[in-house]
Amino acid sequence: MKHVRVNSDRLWESLMEMGKIGATEKGGVCRLALTDLDRVSRDLLTEWCEAEGCSREVDAMGNLFFRRPGKSNSEKAVGFGSHLDTQPTGGKFDGAYGVLAGLEVIRTLNDHGIETELPVELVVWTNEEGSRFPPAMIGSAVFAGAFDLAYGHSRSDLSGKTMGEELERIGYRGDAVPEDHEYAAFFEAHIEQGPILESIEKPIGVVTGVQGVNWYDVVVVGAETHAGPTPMDQRKDALRTSSMILRDLYRIAENSGFDARLTIGEHRIFPGSRNTVPSRVEFSIDMRHPDLQEFDRIDEEIQTAVLSFNDSTDLEVTVERIWRSPPIQFNSECISRVRNAARTCNFAFNEMVSGAGHDSVYISSVAPTSMIFIPCDDGVSHNELENTSPEFAGAGANVLLHSVLASTGNYAWPNLLTFSVSEMRSLTYCALLAKKTSSRWSLPKARCS
Amino acid sequence: MKHVRVNSDRLWESLMEMGKIGATEKGGVCRLALTDLDRVSRDLLTEWCEAEGCSREVDAMGNLFFRRPGKSNSEKAVGFGSHLDTQPTGGKFDGAYGVLAGLEVIRTLNDHGIETELPVELVVWTNEEGSRFPPAMIGSAVFAGAFDLAYGHSRSDLSGKTMGEELERIGYRGDAVPEDHEYAAFFEAHIEQGPILESIEKPIGVVTGVQGVNWYDVVVVGAETHAGPTPMDQRKDALRTSSMILRDLYRIAENSGFDARLTIGEHRIFPGSRNTVPSRVEFSIDMRHPDLQEFDRIDEEIQTAVLSFNDSTDLEVTVERIWRSPPIQFNSECISRVRNAARTCNFAFNEMVSGAGHDSVYISSVAPTSMIFIPCDDGVSHNELENTSPEFAGAGANVLLHSVLASTGNYAWPNLLTFSVSEMRSLTYCALLAKKTSSRWSLPKARCS
Repeated sequence: MKHVRVNSDRLWESLMEMGKIGATEKGGVCRLALTDLDRVSRDLLTEWCEAEGCSREVDAMGNLFFRRPGKSNSEKAVGFGSHLDTQPTGGKFDGAYGVLAGLEVIRTLNDHGIETELPVELVVWTNEEGSRFPPAMIGSAVFAGAFDLAYGHSRSDLSGKTMGEELERIGYRGDAVPEDHEYAAFFEAHIEQGPILESIEKPIGVVTGVQGVNWYDVVVVGAETHAGPTPMDQRKDALRTSSMILRDLYRIAENSGFDARLTIGEHRIFPGSRNTVPSRVEFSIDMRHPDLQEFDRIDEEIQTAVLSFNDSTDLEVTVERIWRSPPIQFNSECISRVRNAARTCNFAFNEMVSGAGHDSVYISSVAPTSMIFIPCDDGVSHNELENTSPEFAGAGANVLLHSVLASTGNYAWPNLLTFSVSEMRSLTYCALLAKKTSSRWSLPKARCS
Repeated sequence: MKHVRVNSDRLWESLMEMGKIGATEKGGVCRLALTDLDRVSRDLLTEWCEAEGCSREVDAMGNLFFRRPGKSNSEKAVGFGSHLDTQPTGGKFDGAYGVLAGLEVIRTLNDHGIETELPVELVVWTNEEGSRFPPAMIGSAVFAGAFDLAYGHSRSDLSGKTMGEELERIGYRGDAVPEDHEYAAFFEAHIEQGPILESIEKPIGVVTGVQGVNWYDVVVVGAETHAGPTPMDQRKDALRTSSMILRDLYRIAENSGFDARLTIGEHRIFPGSRNTVPSRVEFSIDMRHPDLQEFDRIDEEIQTAVLSFNDSTDLEVTVERIWRSPPIQFNSECISRVRNAARTCNFAFNEMVSGAGHDSVYISSVAPTSMIFIPCDDGVSHNELENTSPEFAGAGANVLLHSVLASTGNYAWPNLLTFSVSEMRSLTYCALLAKKTSSRWSLPKARCS
């Protein structure tokens, strides 16, 4: 069983085929949730899964459940999957990779005639991106009970069309209910959407949780004056003060260790005239940390730092925390299975937290859950240039396969030293590197020996 | 002659009357160059000046010359004036004050039957603001030969109408030429448009020159990444780097003494999404200094400081100086006459440079020129809330009157200690304060004794 491996080429072909639906000129994909293109991608996946003997159920949010029966079909299934919708200028891998890695797991089980103890289900969650219908991850949120169905159905796009209407229109408003799809374990494979695996040269991320995120809005109010006559020390220059605040904020992140993230992504200045001292600056803060205690400490440090400028300057500074999503810790048993699966396949791995949100955040509240990351080029995602390699895609699918097999009760851990030398050679990271053409991934020979 | 004084109430009434032409709801004025409202204001001024016995000439740029003859009419005249056009949301005093203070000088000469040795001319320069037809100060620039007439006539507004067409339309395209209007001296009274006189509590600014101005465009190019996954030390955050550049730039200004000014008035960030690390920041720099050597030193320091970030970071930083206007030094004899006029009237004064540009910058290249400032509330200008007081307006007009009288040869300097005690009492700054109702201007009694 430990020597069973997916077919990386077949997985890559499926990714390329799926990537044609909504393909953009720059090599990306635009396949917004519940558009005709989304329907075509769902239809294609259904065709593929039915060819593998899976049955399909659709729930009221359009979430899809493709079931491969096991020996004990009254037991909870082992689930895996992700999403098929994309950003407006998205790539071929964000979401689709997790879905098609799941399909490849089913195909591999069929190839080898493996009957699992528990049934398995490949799941597609509706509208993960939230690009067309905000907020993000509505399908998994309704499934997990975080949003109710009426809320999910009433979300509307910019033209006023609701998710309920669009589900009807494309024929994907079903009648399955969450109770029909309880999971003994759930796994989601995904591209990392960050540069860490690439920079440390490891093909697998064992994802232990998801960062907490706080969003803030900061406003600095000074006074507008002519750029010429007013001496520097008589100005209430909102940009000058906000630049000092920014320095303090970046320092907080720099002093809070590797896991802390701080981004000021929106920044507006008023009146925005070349020869007028700015009277008002508005900016956002996005702060992330995976550890709850540290997350809350940094939260307090940020708010204190910003507000201190009310004392140290005669400008008016306000900060409002507009969103708080505390850190998520995935199920330790599921994490352990992913870790062991990587070891089984002899892939170097990195234990890490996800910086981005995923459907698994919601699923983890109703089922033991964890995630598997693979590298993506330059860490680029939400971008038409998003890319990975057939080797990394296959590696992640192999880890998914063995995580699933460990969860369906098909074999017991740990017995990790039984693979052959040839298997070691073929599946090590260095072997993967040798196959990848990108020079970015070429390593000094010494490190591959 | 030294005891001759203007009628401050009459001047204030004229300011209020002129301020009705284009009056806005918030108490300001919108009277853009060469609109029908501009025509109405020119017609009103013409009516007032002709009532005082002045003749009028109009040149090809619509500049107006109202002449009061003297004894020696073949000699160069003494000129004074400013502009009647305003910003779109301008005030009642920027420009109009200098024109109507000039009218008040003529009325006062008539009141007292003073025949000046040289003729005097009140001048209105066309399109000082440049709000409708960029650039600013076109009328005085063409008069001084800095722009040629064809250039001036071809300047167009956003709807494509040219100054030449609009001058024809409102009936103010005349045939006078600069040679007809050479000046022995030229004076411009103006509100300060800055807070210095108010903060040091002096009613008169003796303007010795105009700051040099450099404009720069700076671009910082980093890389766009997701706010979550990318560790702080692997980011190329354009805003983080630009905030460091800003701190260095503000420090340069702070370390360059009282006269240095640095304003970052435009600042744009891309892509401007809350959860995306900014890849690009563009900002402007407006740097001013009145001393040429210091002006050039700061110029070099700014460019060096910005470019140093190409070495200290792996982002790409560029700086381009897009405009350079070196400092202007007014005529020392004219400055001296303004200073002596302020002493004659017993007004406390401050020698200062103008931070803003004025028609006098161009006129100073063809005639001995200087300027007289009066305080404006909070230093606010280019704003509908722009304000000053009848007392300050009268004070500036008195200084203008005596600067003109000194230039027309009607009396010789210096003989400054001949005014009466009652005159001292009525015209000191403290007396002015006592008449002004705004609490901002109330002083501790000790300082008025």
